[in-house]
Formats: sequence, C-alpha cells, structure tokens
Amino acid sequence: MNNQSIVLASRPQGWVKPDDFRLESSAMPAPRDGEVLVKNLWLSLDPYMRGRISEAKSYVPPVAIGAVMVGQTVGEVIESKAPGLKAGDHVLTSLGWQTHGVARGTEVTKVDGSKVPLSYFLGVLGMPGLTAYFGLYEIGHPRAGNTLVVSAASGAVGSVVGQLAKASGCRVVGIAGGKAKCDYVVKDLGFDACVDYKAGKLKEDLAKATPDGVDVYFENVGGEIMDAVMARMNFASRMVVCGLISDYNTTEPYGMKMMRSVLVNRIRMQGMIVFDWVNRYPEGIKALSALLSSGKIKYRESVVQGIENAPQGLIDLLQGKNFGKQLVKLT
Amino acid sequence: MNNQSIVLASRPQGWVKPDDFRLESSAMPAPRDGEVLVKNLWLSLDPYMRGRISEAKSYVPPVAIGAVMVGQTVGEVIESKAPGLKAGDHVLTSLGWQTHGVARGTEVTKVDGSKVPLSYFLGVLGMPGLTAYFGLYEIGHPRAGNTLVVSAASGAVGSVVGQLAKASGCRVVGIAGGKAKCDYVVKDLGFDACVDYKAGKLKEDLAKATPDGVDVYFENVGGEIMDAVMARMNFASRMVVCGLISDYNTTEPYGMKMMRSVLVNRIRMQGMIVFDWVNRYPEGIKALSALLSSGKIKYRESVVQGIENAPQGLIDLLQGKNFGKQLVKLT
Repeated sequence: MNNQSIVLASRPQGWVKPDDFRLESSAMPAPRDGEVLVKNLWLSLDPYMRGRISEAKSYVPPVAIGAVMVGQTVGEVIESKAPGLKAGDHVLTSLGWQTHGVARGTEVTKVDGSKVPLSYFLGVLGMPGLTAYFGLYEIGHPRAGNTLVVSAASGAVGSVVGQLAKASGCRVVGIAGGKAKCDYVVKDLGFDACVDYKAGKLKEDLAKATPDGVDVYFENVGGEIMDAVMARMNFASRMVVCGLISDYNTTEPYGMKMMRSVLVNRIRMQGMIVFDWVNRYPEGIKALSALLSSGKIKYRESVVQGIENAPQGLIDLLQGKNFGKQLVKLT
Repeated sequence: MNNQSIVLASRPQGWVKPDDFRLESSAMPAPRDGEVLVKNLWLSLDPYMRGRISEAKSYVPPVAIGAVMVGQTVGEVIESKAPGLKAGDHVLTSLGWQTHGVARGTEVTKVDGSKVPLSYFLGVLGMPGLTAYFGLYEIGHPRAGNTLVVSAASGAVGSVVGQLAKASGCRVVGIAGGKAKCDYVVKDLGFDACVDYKAGKLKEDLAKATPDGVDVYFENVGGEIMDAVMARMNFASRMVVCGLISDYNTTEPYGMKMMRSVLVNRIRMQGMIVFDWVNRYPEGIKALSALLSSGKIKYRESVVQGIENAPQGLIDLLQGKNFGKQLVKLT
C-alpha cells in the first residue's frame, strides 16, 4: 500500500483553483528510532491555509511548490519506535494532507476518543475552539449585558465564540451567509440574532440586531462586514482580529474606511493567533470540554470524503460553502 | 469696547475655507453671580476643531451654524463675581474664538504664568502635552530599546511624544512634512531620525529609518502614512490612534489596507482622547513641567496675530503649514 498525499502544484493568485494542487502516491514511509508511523483518520481544513500557500509575509514561510500541504490530522499509530506510544494509540499530528506519515513521538499529542469523537480534537477541542476561547476572553473581555457580534458565526471558531459569549451573559449576534446558517445559529446555537450578509441590507439588518451598539466584535472575515460593524461599535469597545478571510483570496486587500470609529470610540483592536497561548491549551481544553458535556456548547461538522477531495473542500471553505467545522474523512 | 468673535458661517465640505467663518462684534457681556468676565490673551488652534465643525458622529454635537467657534483660551480675569477669583488672575477657559467672554468660575482653571509663559498651558502643559503623555504611556507602553514612530512629529502633540519616548530610552523616528520640520525634529528635539513624507519615497525612507521595525506607533495623521507604518510594525507592537488629520478634510475616508498586519503581528491598536484621563491631569502636568524645567522637553510655537486671522490659522494647521503648536495671540 502506498501513501497518498496532496502537494501544492502552483501558488494561487486570487481564488484557489483545484489544479493548484496535485495528488501524489509514494512508498509508505518507515519510522526510525523515536518516531511513529501514523495512519491519518481525519484532516482539518482551516482558513489559515490560504495564507500558508500565499507569498505574503505571514507567521511562517509559505508551503513550497511540490511540498505536502500543511494541516493538522487525527490519526492512529500503526507502528511505534517512540517511547510512550504504541500501535492503536490515537494522536493529534501536523502531518498535513496525506493518508499516512512519520512523525517524532514528541511532535504528536495523544488524544482520548472514548468520551468525544476523535474529530473534535481538530475542532471544538482543538485549534478552532481554543482560538475562540483565548481570543474571546483574553482580548474581547466580554461582560454580562454586553452585545457581542461574531462574523462567520456558524463556522468552527465563530460558533464557539458565540456560545461562550452567551454563556458569559452577553447578547450575541452572529453574521453568516444565507438563511440556513442564520437559522442554525439562532435556533440550534441559541444566539439572540443573526444577520444574513447575503440578504443585501447588511447595515440596516445589523443596526436592527444591535440596538445598543456593539461592545465586542470577534472578526473572522474582514472587508465590508468589518466596516459595517465598526460603524456600530460602542465607547471603549473591543475588536478581536482573528481572521480576515475575505482578504485572503483577493489580490488587493480591502481598504478599511472606519478608522475614525477607532479614534472616536476609543476602540481597542488587537490581532491574535492561538499559538500565543500555547502554554495554556490544557486550561482551554478543560473549559471547553466541560461546556460541551453540559450542553452549553453545540458543535457541527462538515465532512468531505477522501484525500483526493481535500482541495475542493478547502475551496468550498474559503467561499463559505461549508456549514460547520470543515473536515476530510480519510478512511 | 465690543467683544469680537468668530462664528461658524457654513459647514465645510472637504477643505475648510476662510468664508466658512465670519467675524462678529457684540456688546461686552457682563458677569452675573458666580461668573467672571475674561479678556482672552491666547487662543489655541487644534486639529480636533475640524471634527467639531463637521456633521460626522463625534464625541459631542457639532458647533451650530452662527455659534462662536469652540476652543481653549488663556485669559485674564477683568471682573469677578465668582469666589476665589479676582481681577488680574490668569485662567484657562473654554470660551472659544473671541476676545472676551463670561464663564462660570467653576468652569475656568487658574494658571500660574510666573514660571512658564501663559501660552504653554494651551500646549506642552495643556491638552496637547497631556494627550502625548497619557497616550504614549497608557496605550503605547514604550520600553527602553523599542523603536517608536510618531507622525506630525514637529507638532504640539508629536514633538512631546517623541521627546518623552526618547527620555524613556526608545529609538525615536518622526514623520513630518518638509526638510525644515525634519531638521528641527532631529537637531533641536533630538529624535534619532525623521522621514520627510513630502520627499516622495515614504516607504523606502521609513524602512531605512526603522531597521528593527516599529514597536510603538503614535498616529496623528492616518491615510497612506498609516499604511506605510503598519507595514513596518513588529510582533506585539502597539498603535496609539490619537488623530487622523488626513481624513478630516476629505469627503471619503482613506481605506486602510494593512489590516492583515494587525492580524499577523498581533498589533494592539487603540483610539484615545485626552479627556479619558481627566482625573489624572495634575499628574501629567507635574511630569511634563519637570521635564520642561530640566530641558528634556523643548517646545515651539507658531503664532498668528489677531482674532480675525484665526480662520486662516486653522486652515494652515490642517494643511500642515504650521511649525509647532498653533496659537492665536489676541492682544
């Protein structure tokens, strides 16, 4: 049996296309001392991946042409030469878009699939959930009675942000694309309101949904949505800049016109990456697990089948066609 | 003798014009119980005034058409019916653009002109100096070894920001318009470098002046200068949004393109108004007075003569033609 992987074939300009990627087959790798061979079960698809295949300055150098696409997986150890790990163990890895891979034992994290599905460690109990948890509490500083707005509200990060804010006593308003997502956010997740940005009257709908203005804005999207929310921000409000997905596929970034609101309303705006709190992940996972068990956080996944469909899965995600945390099921 | 005042004649669109204002003459007002009649000696002209004559949402309602223009003055009490104030006292007032005026005794602040010129209470020891002091220390959080950039570097706020940062161990880079202002900032005020934004190669010059990037950016200007500095910001850097003077005279605000830098570099950006620290003014004045006495802060004024020239003084200020703190000498 060979290892199947998706490599970057070309560096996309603007929207990502399927042929920016290529499926490759290679010999099954063998673990050396200190390493494990992992069969990947789930691959996570995330908006940050668009940045990793672009040449713009970012956190880390971009994925090289011809290299395996980066990404987190949950997999099963099938051969171990690493202390503390044995065949059958489930692990969180950074092996990327491939069916199998070899990692140092110290580079993977054991996860326990007995209480929650293994895929949750790529979502609500993984990077997206922790992004929501630390971004909201460390930068957003929500207070009971505050109005919080979150964009990409039905997504992996946004859905957790809104539910955490709700649990913290906020009035929570989501922004999402289309009636189905908005209905889900209000009826299933318990948000107070949701604005459908595709309905064509964003400013009016946002004004109706935030009669007392906005105290915390958790930004995943950027662009015109950001400007529209900025115009509703209250005195001493906070804006968490977590993602700007609307800019990721454009060749010219959006020009934010509402800087005046930052000045006049003394808004505190701050960028974030979940890695900034890497030493506190256990705290976040514990808190999110408890809220999940008690039913205060609900969670939804959007699954594509097979490694060969990962590129289309990412493209759909970047266009907002996913509904919930986007995953690739590899087995 | 009559009172001479400047009233708002029309609400400017875009650049302010002289005939947006009108000189009026009226009977000398008389103080009632609890009030003082003040002869204004100095009128302060400040960028915020552009906002006060526009209809855009701001801190407070705009100046009405036909009303006396708002502004701070330093004057001399010529008749007092207020306890604790007597003829001859010098006071800081909000009487606006007029030669005389009546104020409640509780609305003016006594100032002591025996150690520093009275005009300093409108500049380095007044709102501009306090803006620099609280904005820099409370939001900018400068550390020894940091690189700080300040726009409008030769102005009333920028010159104090840079000198305070220098005294706090920072490498200080100013941005100003023209060689004369840049020379002043470096040679007289002791900044490490100054970028002349009128020289036509802002990005290159800024890169040369900030080889280690930018840790604190104190923004007075906005627009393209802001985007250029944003592109140089370091990880976990801070941006104090104090003013956006380049936007004040445009009908369409500038679109900031570097939001991505906020995200990638985890920049913390925060708007400010000096009023936010009104309870701490005495602390700021004490600190600034000490630095002024010891020669660590130098200060320059730009003076126009006569109330009738106040409109042109404001227009020059908004176009960057002033050089130092802009004042109108009324006597």
